[in-house]
Amino acid sequence: MMQIPIGVSNRHIHLTKEDLEKLFGEGYELTSKKELSQPGEFAAEETVTIKTEKSEIANVRILGPIRKATQIEISKTDAFHLKINAPIRSSGNIDGTPGITIIGPKGELTIEKGVIIAERHIHMTTKDAETFNVEDGQYVRVKVSGERELIFHQVLIRVKDSYALDMHIDTDEANAAGLKTGDKGEIVK
Amino acid sequence: MMQIPIGVSNRHIHLTKEDLEKLFGEGYELTSKKELSQPGEFAAEETVTIKTEKSEIANVRILGPIRKATQIEISKTDAFHLKINAPIRSSGNIDGTPGITIIGPKGELTIEKGVIIAERHIHMTTKDAETFNVEDGQYVRVKVSGERELIFHQVLIRVKDSYALDMHIDTDEANAAGLKTGDKGEIVK
Repeated sequence: MMQIPIGVSNRHIHLTKEDLEKLFGEGYELTSKKELSQPGEFAAEETVTIKTEKSEIANVRILGPIRKATQIEISKTDAFHLKINAPIRSSGNIDGTPGITIIGPKGELTIEKGVIIAERHIHMTTKDAETFNVEDGQYVRVKVSGERELIFHQVLIRVKDSYALDMHIDTDEANAAGLKTGDKGEIVK
Repeated sequence: MMQIPIGVSNRHIHLTKEDLEKLFGEGYELTSKKELSQPGEFAAEETVTIKTEKSEIANVRILGPIRKATQIEISKTDAFHLKINAPIRSSGNIDGTPGITIIGPKGELTIEKGVIIAERHIHMTTKDAETFNVEDGQYVRVKVSGERELIFHQVLIRVKDSYALDMHIDTDEANAAGLKTGDKGEIVK
């Protein structure tokens, strides 16, 4: 059975060019701190603070490059801390999600929507999808081993030829399963 | 299939009489704030702060009644925050676990061991064990449903006639599975 590498996503934010400039100044460009598993994606040196009426979290990492919509991905633990009712959504599916205030070194802004808890998912190429006999949009089950062994159900398959094979889970899911980035899972029937 | 009620355990501390008195004063007795699912157990009004060299967490709830050994149960998220290497252990199994400083209103103390991440487990009576066809110390798999459906493996069965049927998971596990206290799980083969 081919194994799938696991990547643990800490809370992070994707920004539009416009929102990046509001937070960091006109013409600002992100600096890459570290390349991510998906080709072209990177964790930036830059961070912001996210703030609700009740609470806030500092040092939220920006992931680059800039996107068409600003989106913040947090864990359910973060959602309790912020007292925000963020739904579980696949990336990009932000209609009807709550907004939040974002604070950068040169300004702040309040978005009307965009805070989600990311639905666990596997990025793969068309060729990987053939190998695993799955298709884009399908939900599969993934078994992980170790002290906190479990089988994740409801794992979304996302297929694009520019993707690299990687299963993304958030920190709650990683902690519940005793996983860290680089561990492996396998699709089970 | 008989269902098992789920109880989500937030971080908490059990204290010996001696440690309670060091933190709250001589002859101090805990006040019950809320009865817990296990007969005789309660969440106390009283809380403490737990502190490592790197970080601390305030408002850690004391669970009563007093016990023979002081023990602190945190989540892996808490362990990262505190920068403490707490192992996954069943309650009471604290040899070789890290210590921590505990701060109360009348004093503080440093324990040499006792910080664990609780191993997920199901409390049940002998009669429940017969019904489920399991025995004390056995590990089972428990399926939970919903948006973040999954099957927990490595769930420890704990049998005692004074127990009430209840599966205990921590906040990371609850968040990863989208569960709250009162939700149900079922043992699967």
